[in-house]
Amino acid sequence: MKVGILNGPNLNLLGKREPEIYGHQGFESYLEKLQADFPEHEIQYRQSNVEGELVSALHELAEECEGIIFNPAAFTHTSIALADAAKSIDCPIIEVHLSNVYQRESFRHKSYLSPAAKGVITGLGLKGYELAMRALLG
Amino acid sequence: MKVGILNGPNLNLLGKREPEIYGHQGFESYLEKLQADFPEHEIQYRQSNVEGELVSALHELAEECEGIIFNPAAFTHTSIALADAAKSIDCPIIEVHLSNVYQRESFRHKSYLSPAAKGVITGLGLKGYELAMRALLG
Amino acid sequence: MKVGILNGPNLNLLGKREPEIYGHQGFESYLEKLQADFPEHEIQYRQSNVEGELVSALHELAEECEGIIFNPAAFTHTSIALADAAKSIDCPIIEVHLSNVYQRESFRHKSYLSPAAKGVITGLGLKGYELAMRALLG
Amino acid sequence: MKVGILNGPNLNLLGKREPEIYGHQGFESYLEKLQADFPEHEIQYRQSNVEGELVSALHELAEECEGIIFNPAAFTHTSIALADAAKSIDCPIIEVHLSNVYQRESFRHKSYLSPAAKGVITGLGLKGYELAMRALLG
Amino acid sequence: MKVGILNGPNLNLLGKREPEIYGHQGFESYLEKLQADFPEHEIQYRQSNVEGELVSALHELAEECEGIIFNPAAFTHTSIALADAAKSIDCPIIEVHLSNVYQRESFRHKSYLSPAAKGVITGLGLKGYELAMRALLG
Amino acid sequence: MKVGILNGPNLNLLGKREPEIYGHQGFESYLEKLQADFPEHEIQYRQSNVEGELVSALHELAEECEGIIFNPAAFTHTSIALADAAKSIDCPIIEVHLSNVYQRESFRHKSYLSPAAKGVITGLGLKGYELAMRALLG
Amino acid sequence: MKVGILNGPNLNLLGKREPEIYGHQGFESYLEKLQADFPEHEIQYRQSNVEGELVSALHELAEECEGIIFNPAAFTHTSIALADAAKSIDCPIIEVHLSNVYQRESFRHKSYLSPAAKGVITGLGLKGYELAMRALLG
Amino acid sequence: MKVGILNGPNLNLLGKREPEIYGHQGFESYLEKLQADFPEHEIQYRQSNVEGELVSALHELAEECEGIIFNPAAFTHTSIALADAAKSIDCPIIEVHLSNVYQRESFRHKSYLSPAAKGVITGLGLKGYELAMRALLG
Amino acid sequence: MKVGILNGPNLNLLGKREPEIYGHQGFESYLEKLQADFPEHEIQYRQSNVEGELVSALHELAEECEGIIFNPAAFTHTSIALADAAKSIDCPIIEVHLSNVYQRESFRHKSYLSPAAKGVITGLGLKGYELAMRALLG
Amino acid sequence: MKVGILNGPNLNLLGKREPEIYGHQGFESYLEKLQADFPEHEIQYRQSNVEGELVSALHELAEECEGIIFNPAAFTHTSIALADAAKSIDCPIIEVHLSNVYQRESFRHKSYLSPAAKGVITGLGLKGYELAMRALLG
Amino acid sequence: MKVGILNGPNLNLLGKREPEIYGHQGFESYLEKLQADFPEHEIQYRQSNVEGELVSALHELAEECEGIIFNPAAFTHTSIALADAAKSIDCPIIEVHLSNVYQRESFRHKSYLSPAAKGVITGLGLKGYELAMRALLG
Amino acid sequence: MKVGILNGPNLNLLGKREPEIYGHQGFESYLEKLQADFPEHEIQYRQSNVEGELVSALHELAEECEGIIFNPAAFTHTSIALADAAKSIDCPIIEVHLSNVYQRESFRHKSYLSPAAKGVITGLGLKGYELAMRALLG
Repeated sequence: MKVGILNGPNLNLLGKREPEIYGHQGFESYLEKLQADFPEHEIQYRQSNVEGELVSALHELAEECEGIIFNPAAFTHTSIALADAAKSIDCPIIEVHLSNVYQRESFRHKSYLSPAAKGVITGLGLKGYELAMRALLG
Repeated sequence: MKVGILNGPNLNLLGKREPEIYGHQGFESYLEKLQADFPEHEIQYRQSNVEGELVSALHELAEECEGIIFNPAAFTHTSIALADAAKSIDCPIIEVHLSNVYQRESFRHKSYLSPAAKGVITGLGLKGYELAMRALLG
Repeated sequence: MKVGILNGPNLNLLGKREPEIYGHQGFESYLEKLQADFPEHEIQYRQSNVEGELVSALHELAEECEGIIFNPAAFTHTSIALADAAKSIDCPIIEVHLSNVYQRESFRHKSYLSPAAKGVITGLGLKGYELAMRALLG
Repeated sequence: MKVGILNGPNLNLLGKREPEIYGHQGFESYLEKLQADFPEHEIQYRQSNVEGELVSALHELAEECEGIIFNPAAFTHTSIALADAAKSIDCPIIEVHLSNVYQRESFRHKSYLSPAAKGVITGLGLKGYELAMRALLG
Repeated sequence: MKVGILNGPNLNLLGKREPEIYGHQGFESYLEKLQADFPEHEIQYRQSNVEGELVSALHELAEECEGIIFNPAAFTHTSIALADAAKSIDCPIIEVHLSNVYQRESFRHKSYLSPAAKGVITGLGLKGYELAMRALLG
Repeated sequence: MKVGILNGPNLNLLGKREPEIYGHQGFESYLEKLQADFPEHEIQYRQSNVEGELVSALHELAEECEGIIFNPAAFTHTSIALADAAKSIDCPIIEVHLSNVYQRESFRHKSYLSPAAKGVITGLGLKGYELAMRALLG
Repeated sequence: MKVGILNGPNLNLLGKREPEIYGHQGFESYLEKLQADFPEHEIQYRQSNVEGELVSALHELAEECEGIIFNPAAFTHTSIALADAAKSIDCPIIEVHLSNVYQRESFRHKSYLSPAAKGVITGLGLKGYELAMRALLG
Repeated sequence: MKVGILNGPNLNLLGKREPEIYGHQGFESYLEKLQADFPEHEIQYRQSNVEGELVSALHELAEECEGIIFNPAAFTHTSIALADAAKSIDCPIIEVHLSNVYQRESFRHKSYLSPAAKGVITGLGLKGYELAMRALLG
Repeated sequence: MKVGILNGPNLNLLGKREPEIYGHQGFESYLEKLQADFPEHEIQYRQSNVEGELVSALHELAEECEGIIFNPAAFTHTSIALADAAKSIDCPIIEVHLSNVYQRESFRHKSYLSPAAKGVITGLGLKGYELAMRALLG
Repeated sequence: MKVGILNGPNLNLLGKREPEIYGHQGFESYLEKLQADFPEHEIQYRQSNVEGELVSALHELAEECEGIIFNPAAFTHTSIALADAAKSIDCPIIEVHLSNVYQRESFRHKSYLSPAAKGVITGLGLKGYELAMRALLG
Repeated sequence: MKVGILNGPNLNLLGKREPEIYGHQGFESYLEKLQADFPEHEIQYRQSNVEGELVSALHELAEECEGIIFNPAAFTHTSIALADAAKSIDCPIIEVHLSNVYQRESFRHKSYLSPAAKGVITGLGLKGYELAMRALLG
Repeated sequence: MKVGILNGPNLNLLGKREPEIYGHQGFESYLEKLQADFPEHEIQYRQSNVEGELVSALHELAEECEGIIFNPAAFTHTSIALADAAKSIDCPIIEVHLSNVYQRESFRHKSYLSPAAKGVITGLGLKGYELAMRALLG
């Protein structure tokens, strides 16, 4: 199976900043480990801070992949455009959040994406991406 | 008259996806027909999934055109930046929506753009662009 | 095609009062011009200040016409009875508003009718009725 | 006992439209059967699409009847005038709704009339009128 | 000065019902006394339970009178159509309420009419009409 | 027909407390009269103050009965679990309330159960159970 | 009759500032004219910018007067203490506002005082004090 | 590791009712498979329809287990008691929901439990329990 | 005097968990001290995690006691059933909360019970029970 | 221990007005009794109708006393300044209300002061001051 | 230029209390330094805990000064009277807050004063007063 | 000190459009003057209409500068992504707004950025940037 992983704004800083919250591991090094754990599957990774580029990335990944793992970060709570993109593609999406958003500001409790996703995994750190892989593999 | 048509996020998929909702016609082919119907007027078309590029496009189209037909799609409901851009230009804008947004989720009933537009045409499909042309032509 | 035009409360004053907002043209004189522009179609016009008479008028126009252009004026924002009438008939309805209601009080941003209408044309003055005709003619 | 039955807007269409929701029976034919079931009581029936006529009808029925069965339809949710009329008369009122309004739009969950009624019967179709008769008869 | 007095729904029952709240005096007998108190002015009185008839009455009274005293009763809180009528005429309107609406249900605290009125007199019973007369006379 | 009657919290006190509101008749004695009125039908009665026991009772009654009359009392307004139980069974439910809840605190105007019920009878006292029987019998 | 007139914050500036809104007449000069118009009655006048001094003034005026005319200005919308003071005294209070507060910011539409007042006169300028006198005199 | 699995109200019906939504597999049979997949770990399973029994079960499981998988079903949205129980124990909790609650009624979007859980897995059916096991195992 | 003390969910853990918040003293040992301080009065103590059992306990304690001290814990904020039980008994109830709920989540600021209680003592720890005893003793 | 008692607006009328609610005892006479009950402690009493004087009184009492009993009356619900004063001093404050504010208007259910107080005693009349003394004495 | 500085409630404690938040410097000593930094300008300073005295101070400072620096502290969020005073004077006002109110309780995010101020400086400590001086000097 | 200045959407039009509001000076020419006023400091300027580019710019400026002056324009009110970026960097940010946003639409009163900023300067035009420089320099 070909799986797309898409990360939203500020996730390029993962491992570099606020390590007490997000840990010291950058996403790229985690990705290597994840790919190694699932050698029979192909993982394609993209990150952008630009909402519209994430919209386009969803369009494109849906053409190439059979499943998408999407962490929209702050856009979770504000982007109808990403939710519309998710609804307009056939490819199943697992929404992943590193932190437990329900322990944070109330504006983080609302997700426009969730109704368009197959499922949501929240608060389990980078482990959430592995679980999302397993959810897509069935 | 020179008229700009500007389409927002996910509208690049028109005709390709969810044809039961949006029909099988892509916007480019519709545009050809529209230009043919108004041979004495020049239509300039732009589309972007990026909110900020649409802001810039409004700035630029306002320099070149006497009227703009704008379908901001999902940004209708979330973008104050586009509303500010619309307010900061002199060029009249007709807001167009393909579907009847009032039959959909309640967050689609709010438009930041409408107070800055000359008028709004909703729910009449691609026909809405033709009517918007006529509205601009007076 | 036979088309019904139905106008709601206070629209009998059109052209007589607040001409700086609504212009100097009364609806009857506009109607003559509109009928002249569409000689092959029959336009039937009714106006009432009474919500219940508008309910009955929708019932009756739906028997006789293939399309209805409806400007419910103030009842747009308060009448569930008119929305129910619109839902209970098969005849397509185009909702028209003369002014851009989104530039006015927030209670004018809500329309009970819109979910029952085929489409909505707002803010384009009397021109909106002509565009609604074209929308009904397809 | 003399009982008044009062029906609100769009109920004149009962049996003619949306039979999949409201059935094929018009109210008049149901009324004959209801009168036949309660031969010792006199039923007086009125219907209007006009809120103010229903206000007047409540005033008048209260003079003549010992109980009123009232289905205000869409005015249930918007009319304080009807609630005031109900409060200003001594005659007990049973509020009846054909459909289960709680399975429909949230604006149908609010009734201005209910606090002024003796009781409310909802979602039981035309059977609700018979039950309301029995409630009035005690 | 010619002054119009316009009363809304259920006020035809004044003096007949709920005398513990509204007193035993019907409006007609009060009107005689009021006219006698202002012999040099002409008072024209109308009452209706129908919102649309009150809209029309405002249109007509504005043609004939130099001031209008308007008690819209329950329509105060629900009718945008009456507020629009009030805004569309030049004639000054004094809004009058018999009871202190602020001691009653919260939905009675909202008046659509007040922004279109010159002033509002609330809670002073029939005396309020006399004070409104004096307010119009300046 | 076998009919289940299920009563919620505090209804075990019926007839013992607050007789000025709920009368002097306990539910058991009413039940005897009700069973006597419908000798050809079998009524099974259960009451509990525990929400979860009511959930289980709905599961069990649905196995045994062809219809359920359910007065969830205070749980009407707070229990999604009971609404879920009602939705998960095929057996039709008539929701009954002794008092007119719309004359009481606003938190009593919301019912989680109603959308899952066939119909609702409110404010008619113990008579409401008899009417609910008739509604189930059709 | 002895009548107290009590004015709230910023009303000491009346006639000095914003004359286009409030006119050129200071309250003291108006008061002279008002006293002259009602020679058989005694008017006692107090003004304060301090909420607690107005509370005490209500306590004291209630001891000395048979009626109070109170314009709480900005404290209308924020002071529960003044409403409590008004409720705790037996003396009838007429609430007066110079401007039509319903044409201004929405926070001015709420009055804590009104439920404790006998009546309210709004939007009629200084004339409102004269009408309030007449309302107290009956 | 010893893991407790706790299921809330109506989940005893799993596999028996609404199979088009929840599938034909009962939880017990799934549990056998899950235990077989994790032979080195001990799974303890409890279900109750009673909120207070689930509170007590959390207290008890926390004594015996190193992790708890909790599907509170309808109590997710209404039970502060369960959230308090979760906060008062040291044992990590993974909250699991079978269906995508964000595609259902808005009252299902609120979870009192989530802020007290380590993480949340939503919409992935029975697979969610397996993923929760893996999340607990780290 | 015979006094009932009733504790709600999770209070069985008092003294065992979160001692930094709730102290190291279990309720039973506190109860011994409290009984010793009031030797001439009889204290009856009950605790349950089940809402419906607390409803029944209120019914039963009201038969036996002349006053009830009730700490409903989490059910304070969600249980209408307990408030109804409190209203249906004649026995005075003092509501007690150990912690200052106003320094915690906003959903803890709402109490359904308080309107049915004689008084409320909040934030004073176990001392609150002693003060409640004194309040009942007068 | 030296204890300050601070009373807010309108409490100077205690015993003089509305004795059916607040009793016939003035606060000064109660204070004598309270001081007599706690002869080993010194009670300092102040009252003001002016919010800012209460702010200053909190500043001053905190210098002199080891505990403050504060009944802010109407300022409870509106004064952030008093809450700020309470937060800025080290002296523990017990908030006291004579009546059960939860049986009154909803705007009385909100207290700005409570989060800054050590505890709150509500609805127990003048007895509440004695209990607050005991709470301060520990 | 003559500049007035006006400080609201609790600011008299500056430097004495909560130094970890507000620092150890009292306002008077800061004022000396500020005056020294602007030797060519005259600074007039007033502080009060009483809202109404601040209203009067604004009236008076406006007579004497060409600019006012106003830190209304807690009254920022509750005082319409101060906003009205600010609107009624011609003198420009710079609103200053020591702390970043947006990092604190949500009720501190609302300022009634801001719409009447020329500008607002928030979160920059005592430095904010110096910047406000520069803003007034242009 | 090296200071970054970052401007958001539509600010590229400054000086060109709506000069009656924003003046005739473009930002580049102002920047020259500002740099000249602070010759010992280095100012780096960037502007973008694209939210994600502003996110990246914050990341990059934080690497190079010791302070950032940020005018997010319309993104102030809608962008959680920018607030997250601001929180994830150590560099202090001063938020600047040219106009007094509190005199404009209510949606402009909310700033997602402010809680992550050191301070906020609003309504002082281009002067605000100079004051922000001084705030950063301390």
